[in-house]
Amino acid sequence: MVAVVAATRWWRMLLVLSAAGMGASGAPQPPNILLLLMDDMGWGDLGVYGEPSRETPNLDRMAAEGTLFPNFYSANPLCSPSRAALLTGRLPIRNGFYTTNAHARNAYTPQEIVGGIPDSEQLLPELLKEAGYVTKIVGKWHLGHRPQFHPLKHGFDEWFGSPNCHFGPYDNKARPNIPVYRDWEMVGRYYEEFPINLKTGEANLTQIYLQEALDFIKRQARRRPFFLYWAVDATHAPVYASKPFLGTSRRGRYGDAVREMDDSIGKMLQLLQDLRIADSTFVFFTSDNGAALISAPEQGGSNGPFLCGKQTTFEGGMREPALAWWPGHIAAGQVSHQLGSITDLFTTSLALAGLTPPSDRAIDGLNLLPALLQGRLMDRPVFYYRGDTLMAATLGQHKAHFWTWTNSWENFRQGMDFCPGQNVSGVTTHTLEDHTKLPLIFHLGRDPGERFPLSFASTEYQEALSRIAQVVQQHQEALVPGQPQLNVCNWAVMVSGWCVGGCPVPGCSHPPGAPDEPWPAQGGGGEAGAVPGLHPGPGPWCLSVQDSGCWSQATWDQCHTAPGLLQVPGRLPS
Amino acid sequence: MVAVVAATRWWRMLLVLSAAGMGASGAPQPPNILLLLMDDMGWGDLGVYGEPSRETPNLDRMAAEGTLFPNFYSANPLCSPSRAALLTGRLPIRNGFYTTNAHARNAYTPQEIVGGIPDSEQLLPELLKEAGYVTKIVGKWHLGHRPQFHPLKHGFDEWFGSPNCHFGPYDNKARPNIPVYRDWEMVGRYYEEFPINLKTGEANLTQIYLQEALDFIKRQARRRPFFLYWAVDATHAPVYASKPFLGTSRRGRYGDAVREMDDSIGKMLQLLQDLRIADSTFVFFTSDNGAALISAPEQGGSNGPFLCGKQTTFEGGMREPALAWWPGHIAAGQVSHQLGSITDLFTTSLALAGLTPPSDRAIDGLNLLPALLQGRLMDRPVFYYRGDTLMAATLGQHKAHFWTWTNSWENFRQGMDFCPGQNVSGVTTHTLEDHTKLPLIFHLGRDPGERFPLSFASTEYQEALSRIAQVVQQHQEALVPGQPQLNVCNWAVMVSGWCVGGCPVPGCSHPPGAPDEPWPAQGGGGEAGAVPGLHPGPGPWCLSVQDSGCWSQATWDQCHTAPGLLQVPGRLPS
Repeated sequence: MVAVVAATRWWRMLLVLSAAGMGASGAPQPPNILLLLMDDMGWGDLGVYGEPSRETPNLDRMAAEGTLFPNFYSANPLCSPSRAALLTGRLPIRNGFYTTNAHARNAYTPQEIVGGIPDSEQLLPELLKEAGYVTKIVGKWHLGHRPQFHPLKHGFDEWFGSPNCHFGPYDNKARPNIPVYRDWEMVGRYYEEFPINLKTGEANLTQIYLQEALDFIKRQARRRPFFLYWAVDATHAPVYASKPFLGTSRRGRYGDAVREMDDSIGKMLQLLQDLRIADSTFVFFTSDNGAALISAPEQGGSNGPFLCGKQTTFEGGMREPALAWWPGHIAAGQVSHQLGSITDLFTTSLALAGLTPPSDRAIDGLNLLPALLQGRLMDRPVFYYRGDTLMAATLGQHKAHFWTWTNSWENFRQGMDFCPGQNVSGVTTHTLEDHTKLPLIFHLGRDPGERFPLSFASTEYQEALSRIAQVVQQHQEALVPGQPQLNVCNWAVMVSGWCVGGCPVPGCSHPPGAPDEPWPAQGGGGEAGAVPGLHPGPGPWCLSVQDSGCWSQATWDQCHTAPGLLQVPGRLPS
Repeated sequence: MVAVVAATRWWRMLLVLSAAGMGASGAPQPPNILLLLMDDMGWGDLGVYGEPSRETPNLDRMAAEGTLFPNFYSANPLCSPSRAALLTGRLPIRNGFYTTNAHARNAYTPQEIVGGIPDSEQLLPELLKEAGYVTKIVGKWHLGHRPQFHPLKHGFDEWFGSPNCHFGPYDNKARPNIPVYRDWEMVGRYYEEFPINLKTGEANLTQIYLQEALDFIKRQARRRPFFLYWAVDATHAPVYASKPFLGTSRRGRYGDAVREMDDSIGKMLQLLQDLRIADSTFVFFTSDNGAALISAPEQGGSNGPFLCGKQTTFEGGMREPALAWWPGHIAAGQVSHQLGSITDLFTTSLALAGLTPPSDRAIDGLNLLPALLQGRLMDRPVFYYRGDTLMAATLGQHKAHFWTWTNSWENFRQGMDFCPGQNVSGVTTHTLEDHTKLPLIFHLGRDPGERFPLSFASTEYQEALSRIAQVVQQHQEALVPGQPQLNVCNWAVMVSGWCVGGCPVPGCSHPPGAPDEPWPAQGGGGEAGAVPGLHPGPGPWCLSVQDSGCWSQATWDQCHTAPGLLQVPGRLPS
């Protein structure tokens, strides 16, 4: 691989040359940016990535017309941290989307979590707005649901979607259903105004999200450049699809959801072409983490030839499908072996907008445009974290595991299997195994499935270890961990807000009326004891923690001293 | 799926319409047929099937210009039986390419095996010759090496290649190196006149085989239609590549071999186009069995998302990459979900030649032209045999396992692992498990990796079982097993023949001088006791048997009573 290249403003020249890059004023303007983020979709779920049923003709065509990345990575094997990394260009360990309740624990933002995206983080839409972009998020936010974390407080002009995953249905009093928002206003809840039929799998949500995207694109097509972040979640269990797609896949319900995604993306790309803005719109498709094999086969996808899935730092947990499309700029039918990261979407988008990343903080994302437009390969590491722990690192074709863990024996024996049908001795461990003194190293070209660790005695091992160790040392010496956002759960942050007319939830305030009164204020420590079904006692409650920031109910002290103490078998973190 | 269609002579109309289909005489002539058969290449080894390094641009283009089959199967998880099935259109249980030395044992044709393709079988080249085809095999024959089995006695006009796999090097006296033939004449041996450097992996063989193909195509381009069977073996361990390809793959040496295959096939397709005979040449690409995971990661390929590999009747053992290419006839960029079989190449080739399959015997192959040219789907079962035992059957998307077995505990503990990193409880068993009363059933669309057997109590299970059981009953009631060809090994059949000038091998006769004295006659029962290093005693010797027709040395009686008695750890059947 060849080392490359400070971010340049080369794009300006490109755009000046492009008639489609001229704004209404006649001044050159940067391209629109459309990021398509799937939820729990695996590397192996697209026809062009080898899914045997080959049911993604639109995505396969997008690949044929653009660049496919076989070596593109999430920044975390779980959704909230991965999404925070995309929007900040920074690893979760920096932007705070992790927990220190226990080592190497994944964590996300369920309803009870207190934290969210800190104001100190600069998000992609905030920065793009400075360059004149109109910004919209459609779908799942997942960067915190308290008032200060609202996406419209972090750079988005518009939002249609939800702060959390579509788990449910819940008891509307003790645990409210997840709300759906249009901008500042809550317009309903999943399973209520936005039904999801868990039995049939029918939900119209993807069609609603598609229409939101099409309307926004049409509206913005001839105005200022737009940034549209389409973060839909039909492929996250419980998977859903609308009626025309239900039962149409050879792969069952999960495949129905994938087919609706594919169809929707086809419609978006077609609209860009119909509006003649395809050559002024940069489109990138990827997923937030690997397929959730624990939901397979009915509700989980495929990680192709890779080991394990979501929740793990094996390739199946973090290697993602990734396609870039920008007709007239990105050549058709290319494959880039650049090691890519979801954090690169931050830096690349800024580069497209003629912006440079913030210089007052560490940024993990690379500008991928040299890879996309000039076929360059940039030497860079990929870091695989669980929570606060660097589990593994890839450099070139070698991956070193410093720690291995899938999940606990207790969870495994209860039926939670993150690697169903796979078992690599000493690798897919059910205890957190320390390999820091003698890492397990795999060659991902010869052995993409991480089945054959290199011999410790081999020259190849020694050389790879030496190169990786140097990069890891640099990374760790310079690392300033962010304040962990996913340590504390509090029942009150769930029940005190989020209501729509009538306030059925104890402590719920009135629905917001105006942008200056955005989200109902949190009800303080909350009166958790008043919530039926919970242990009585003083708040705040802490809901801890197995492979998640918060899970079963415990006191705050227990959270710190005995994570995972009270597990809820069969329920899974998003 | 829709049931379809007796073989018709509809192709004649097509060909009459095609100027390229006119022979020198002006009469319409059937298309040339080029079958490209890989050795131990896995479903997941092509970029277009999702191999992450994406190093098969020519095959990927062949797919883009033709039809890709995601559901195409070998007739056996081992090479000799699979090749016999291709050339006879019949399952190995019918054409004799199996052993009854033990139940459910794979077998092939090493040097010591006595059997081969019976005269009673009608091979594809024999039949095509009747329709005026000139026929050539380049590469590995593997249908027996005694005089009566010579490919030129079974319909081929020309041969350049070898009767066996390129194992070696051997002691030239006790065990001769494998010979290489041009037509009737032995022109050298692997590791001697045709060197393979096991240390570096360098061998020029693929280039030689490529040149043989190019020369034949050029020579035949304007004459009678040709049938070229290109059966090369660089991807079979020990894998090899020529110098320009060595060290060029991201996947190591195995990838070097794949790259040379891909490059060679690209050159063949280009030649067809340069000669303007692409539209009168039907090309089909596939492999003889799944990737040999036991040789991974250095010398084995990838079966993508499928379970296990070569030697097993899981999908990884028998599902193959398969591409059909015939510009102007087969539409570009198609995917056919037709369940295909390597036996179909027999029937399809006959249909292309305007011939119907022999009516005096059961033929397993379908004519795939309705699938290729009209997009039809024909309902048909896939049968998965090991030796004499029907292990599994697929119908539609459901696969039922009647028996499960990978290999014995003894072999497994010695390090032979046909499913490295994979372990599906009760499925990847190391004892031969009888499920005939209650088969394990998988839905291959939702669960291509065979990890989640359907619940026995489910309606889906009951319905699938009922459909499959009916088809299996029909199959078994009508089955007339062929005389097993792979039961008997005899050292004499190896040492008595196969020589090139100077006859260094005891008992070796003179090299053949003329077609009417084709292969040196076998030396009768042989004097095995005279061969150094063998147990003294009367012949014939029987070499038995672990996952192979013959393996370690035993007497004939032991072969029948104690198969697997004397194993040779670390050595593998082809």
